[in-house]
Amino acid sequence: MSEVHAARRSRLRDRRTTAGGGAVLVSRPANVRYLTGCSLPGAVLLLGADGRDTLLRPPGPAAGDHADPSGAADGLYHVTLPGDGVDAAVAAAGLAASRGAAALAVEEHDLSVARHRALASAAPGLRLADLGRAVEQQRLVKDEEELAALRTAAEITDHALGELLESILVGRTERHLALELERRLMDHGADGPAFPTSVATGRNSGLAGHRPTDRRVEEGDFLTVRMGARYHGYRCRIGRTFVIGPAPADWQVELYELVFAAQRAGREALAPGAEYRGVDRAARQPLEAAGYGELLEAATGHGVGLEIGEDPRLSPAAMGKLDACVPVTVGPGVHLPGRGGVRIDDTLVVRPQADGGPELLTITTKELLAL
Amino acid sequence: MSEVHAARRSRLRDRRTTAGGGAVLVSRPANVRYLTGCSLPGAVLLLGADGRDTLLRPPGPAAGDHADPSGAADGLYHVTLPGDGVDAAVAAAGLAASRGAAALAVEEHDLSVARHRALASAAPGLRLADLGRAVEQQRLVKDEEELAALRTAAEITDHALGELLESILVGRTERHLALELERRLMDHGADGPAFPTSVATGRNSGLAGHRPTDRRVEEGDFLTVRMGARYHGYRCRIGRTFVIGPAPADWQVELYELVFAAQRAGREALAPGAEYRGVDRAARQPLEAAGYGELLEAATGHGVGLEIGEDPRLSPAAMGKLDACVPVTVGPGVHLPGRGGVRIDDTLVVRPQADGGPELLTITTKELLAL
Repeated sequence: MSEVHAARRSRLRDRRTTAGGGAVLVSRPANVRYLTGCSLPGAVLLLGADGRDTLLRPPGPAAGDHADPSGAADGLYHVTLPGDGVDAAVAAAGLAASRGAAALAVEEHDLSVARHRALASAAPGLRLADLGRAVEQQRLVKDEEELAALRTAAEITDHALGELLESILVGRTERHLALELERRLMDHGADGPAFPTSVATGRNSGLAGHRPTDRRVEEGDFLTVRMGARYHGYRCRIGRTFVIGPAPADWQVELYELVFAAQRAGREALAPGAEYRGVDRAARQPLEAAGYGELLEAATGHGVGLEIGEDPRLSPAAMGKLDACVPVTVGPGVHLPGRGGVRIDDTLVVRPQADGGPELLTITTKELLAL
Repeated sequence: MSEVHAARRSRLRDRRTTAGGGAVLVSRPANVRYLTGCSLPGAVLLLGADGRDTLLRPPGPAAGDHADPSGAADGLYHVTLPGDGVDAAVAAAGLAASRGAAALAVEEHDLSVARHRALASAAPGLRLADLGRAVEQQRLVKDEEELAALRTAAEITDHALGELLESILVGRTERHLALELERRLMDHGADGPAFPTSVATGRNSGLAGHRPTDRRVEEGDFLTVRMGARYHGYRCRIGRTFVIGPAPADWQVELYELVFAAQRAGREALAPGAEYRGVDRAARQPLEAAGYGELLEAATGHGVGLEIGEDPRLSPAAMGKLDACVPVTVGPGVHLPGRGGVRIDDTLVVRPQADGGPELLTITTKELLAL
């Protein structure tokens, strides 16, 4: 992996050099991990004005899933700080100044006002600038290593969910089902869940951010599961809704078919060059037309990668267009207060039609299963 | 709980009024939860210059474990934002200005430079000041509700660990043991783990931040477990080291007795008025005297509450003195590279000698058990 990280750093450097040069400090954890493989909390990356890249980290265990402990093969200098309150970002500013940098671009959306001030005091000669979301921009389009990790995450997720569907669900609580799903994710090789697993039954079903309760699954319930594996740091999401019992009620079939049609429309709108808000509109319009506009969330999908809700955001006000190799979720849902509802989420990778169109990573069936 | 939160807000207000008045914006998630009970990500609290308290929250599920959905009984106005990128802190600044505040104290250690700038633009007439760590300071000494939650968290933790000790451990992997412990925490009523459960075997044992691997437990291993429950938001920690097999080796007994003596010295140093660094020194000195100074972490303990590593920090450079009703961990450890090691952590509440001295919350035995 170390060559991959070195290549990513050199792409960032190339973009910066054209934009003005100087040293660059990356402090946002997901960005540090993307550029170095190090997932240790508090670690920062300094791209020196002198061409040297340095990872500054607090003392502690080895630096993450993909860390290269030698620090030689990956062209990255490793500095372990003495701990006890030394802020790696402040130390990095001092290091940049001592190596002759005149300017330092920092992530102003990540550094707190207090850290930024400490950094300015530690290196008074250094002119501080804003790097903005340059690394997040670079993270939008995924490389083959990243897509491979996402595919594995989705495979693990499908396996874990599939096993659950083979077991008896009636009488079990939302909390126990969620725990069981997370255990199965780990059994299949996940680093952990991509986000807290949500299991929602009966009148809770279809709620976007439902936290599992002690409610037990009953005959006639809608059961909504939203879950995903984290694998080598990469996170995916699946959302499925089932019916418990021999046959769904008419209102359940109708609502399911509506949400399914909306989700399919969203998936089919994914293409290189498609506007973010166009994809959102495709998934949102059928639900609005059915009178559920007021019940919808602000976004119907978002990018996934090292974070579960990263750029782009698929929402009515989002500006921008999709590229190939951008993985996103498409997951509209409707929750009818007091009754329950339906959510269907997939993780897909945007691909041109010539390559077969969007690549569906989460392949568990979206037929309405009666369990 | 709502009266408790109202009382906490009014204490914060009292301290601020003497210090200059004006509106106050609390954005750090643990601080918002402490003052409102709301644990929804992105929610902020505005203490208005006009005496009104307002919780501003993004749209989403009901606002956390202890939220009062009515918004009436707790003297707190609730504003739900329209979502789609509206930052609650920015909205709060606009609200403060529209209600006639001239100044707004913000948490500069929490707000990013970019958010702070957006806030300043949204309310150009408002003078921004720094609230500093006023809420964290107030959170140091716990009230009875908080201590009760911590006691329950510790009870759950002891139960979960106790059950594991009754099962067969040889042949099971670190990852599976960690998952099993987390499942048992939930079975006993935890909201979740207080932090990722660490199980370290053989040469991994005694490592401070070890992430469980697929290594299996073997005869003769040291086995270190560090875990804790989260209950009503409150987090505790226990750390224990066991030996696998009929009898420990001599080096294991020696190392265990040394770390145990150091940990006991740290516990016994806990008293109202004791210096943070004095407690650290008590736990550190026996290990340094035995030649392990270079192997120790920067801190031997820290405060616990809504966060697992909150103020105070028990380290050589920490300034300040303990008060009664401050819960802390005391957990020194030694890891011998290539061989393994020992960690012993407890969560205790500082109490005066007249009240019986420090209250031990995590009561699992610290005898060296051979399992």
